[in-house]
Amino acid sequence: MMKKEPIWKDREIAALRQQIQQLSNQIAEPSGELAAQRTAFDAFGASVSLPDDLEVKPIEFDGIDAEVLRTPAMFDRSMLLYLHGGGYCGGSPAGYRGLASKLASAIGVPALVPSYRLAPEHPFPAAIEDGVRSYEYLLDAGFDAKRIVIGGDSAGGGLAVAVALQLREKGHPQPAGLLTISPWSDLTQSCARLADRLHDPITQPAMMQRFADYYLQKVRPDHPLASPAFADLDGLAPLLIQVGAQEVLLSDALQLAESAGIAGVDVHMEIWPEMVHVWHLYADWLGAGRRAIAAAAEWARRKLDLETDASGTAATPRITRTPPTP
Amino acid sequence: MMKKEPIWKDREIAALRQQIQQLSNQIAEPSGELAAQRTAFDAFGASVSLPDDLEVKPIEFDGIDAEVLRTPAMFDRSMLLYLHGGGYCGGSPAGYRGLASKLASAIGVPALVPSYRLAPEHPFPAAIEDGVRSYEYLLDAGFDAKRIVIGGDSAGGGLAVAVALQLREKGHPQPAGLLTISPWSDLTQSCARLADRLHDPITQPAMMQRFADYYLQKVRPDHPLASPAFADLDGLAPLLIQVGAQEVLLSDALQLAESAGIAGVDVHMEIWPEMVHVWHLYADWLGAGRRAIAAAAEWARRKLDLETDASGTAATPRITRTPPTP
Repeated sequence: MMKKEPIWKDREIAALRQQIQQLSNQIAEPSGELAAQRTAFDAFGASVSLPDDLEVKPIEFDGIDAEVLRTPAMFDRSMLLYLHGGGYCGGSPAGYRGLASKLASAIGVPALVPSYRLAPEHPFPAAIEDGVRSYEYLLDAGFDAKRIVIGGDSAGGGLAVAVALQLREKGHPQPAGLLTISPWSDLTQSCARLADRLHDPITQPAMMQRFADYYLQKVRPDHPLASPAFADLDGLAPLLIQVGAQEVLLSDALQLAESAGIAGVDVHMEIWPEMVHVWHLYADWLGAGRRAIAAAAEWARRKLDLETDASGTAATPRITRTPPTP
Repeated sequence: MMKKEPIWKDREIAALRQQIQQLSNQIAEPSGELAAQRTAFDAFGASVSLPDDLEVKPIEFDGIDAEVLRTPAMFDRSMLLYLHGGGYCGGSPAGYRGLASKLASAIGVPALVPSYRLAPEHPFPAAIEDGVRSYEYLLDAGFDAKRIVIGGDSAGGGLAVAVALQLREKGHPQPAGLLTISPWSDLTQSCARLADRLHDPITQPAMMQRFADYYLQKVRPDHPLASPAFADLDGLAPLLIQVGAQEVLLSDALQLAESAGIAGVDVHMEIWPEMVHVWHLYADWLGAGRRAIAAAAEWARRKLDLETDASGTAATPRITRTPPTP
């Protein structure tokens, strides 16, 4: 039995929970029509603010459409490869322009956001293949692997880890870090064990089962590339996990942290009280979302060694940024 | 079956592992004589370096002996209450002068290190009572709870959480943070599940069972104050957990993180590759030990809001510290 809903200390998340629940019903109701749900999710994404002076450049490589997001005075030799969320069945670069650009801007680097293929039209392992090809595109373009962070939220977080596993198998160098937000990294639904203990307005079991079925089709849910929380993660890049304390994917996060830790991966996990699945999406209305983006960016800057740039100055992007013309 | 020992990337920990194993055999061999083991542990502690200009002041309050550790230019209105490790059966303020003073100096505050009562002479809950009294002593001395961090390693880490639980029960305000290093927070020995997957030179099951038996006596090992990893941690202060990837207490750390997260505690967990139980103790010979102390101190400074002191300057202790006379 779910415990009585507490009085939330964070008044912002308290005020937002009902809207988040409605949004979740709208975009992920298991009996809903997928095309309409995808459109609604993108429409929500389009309502999110963008950093000042953001330049959005559509590109295409190897058959993959993508967006490059850039603000002035970024560290151009580094890159955030961002894999959006949406249960492997929705989400898009356009819909994630807000979150990806906020993260990239906070880190001080541009972002590459590929439109990886979605299920059910393109099941496992299409998304992983496209993630790997996006990374290879950056290597081919001359980026040093140590100058790339692969980030992702929800399905994109699990995908980031799966991509890193495939990079290892292919003999590619690992990136500087794997920045995961509420990573969906266990498609066996172990997270159900927490459903009655938390107040999760988003990730309902029936919805997750639908997305998992669409994505997996004939593949077992515990396949290590579908559920990297159970994989041997030996040799993977440093891993950041940010997860909300009120989301059932806390289960995925803990299992991923254990597997990564045992495999010798440098693991940094943050559990944010009262927060829900990918609360960063609501950063425009939620200070904890902005603080989580700032904390993730600080972690990424360290892994990218951006505290001191090659120029030898200890400048952060905020300092080097050209002041806006009044 | 334990997997083949890897080639450690950190050459320092590789070089230290054998000595650490020998030390562990010397101080914790289950059939050994406890008095001699306590002496050997303190002797190791006495071999650890101390910060320059450390002032050690023995004090006594409410029947508890303690040491106050202080270096120049510290933030005197804040305090690290440090609960040493030693399986509830060993360890002492003198033996922990090195680690406690390194941590306190890195945070930029003094440390109070109480000589809490040890088992088997003084079983559960004597250690917890003494920890609570130490905190009450600081409150009585005029410290604001928000200016106190309770820290501890191993048994002292579990004890820090148990003390925080008792503070909640007694209606005292929580401290600014709970800084735990390799916290022994599950005395039911669940950690045995990891024994064959890791290369842990220290925490052997028989030794931990002996310490648990000495401490618990007639108390169940899953008592929430003995195994706070299973307690309802609602209302507790922000929690830092630093744990080594090669110690079986990774199990305790993950369980503690889950319980704390679900209870709404702000949790920050770091899993350090290749590191062993309380690797901070070897900081004199191990860069990862120094880096872990620095990371813990940075976390504590944020919780204590020491980035900017009341003077309004953004000074860290390193900056304000009087330069040593040549």
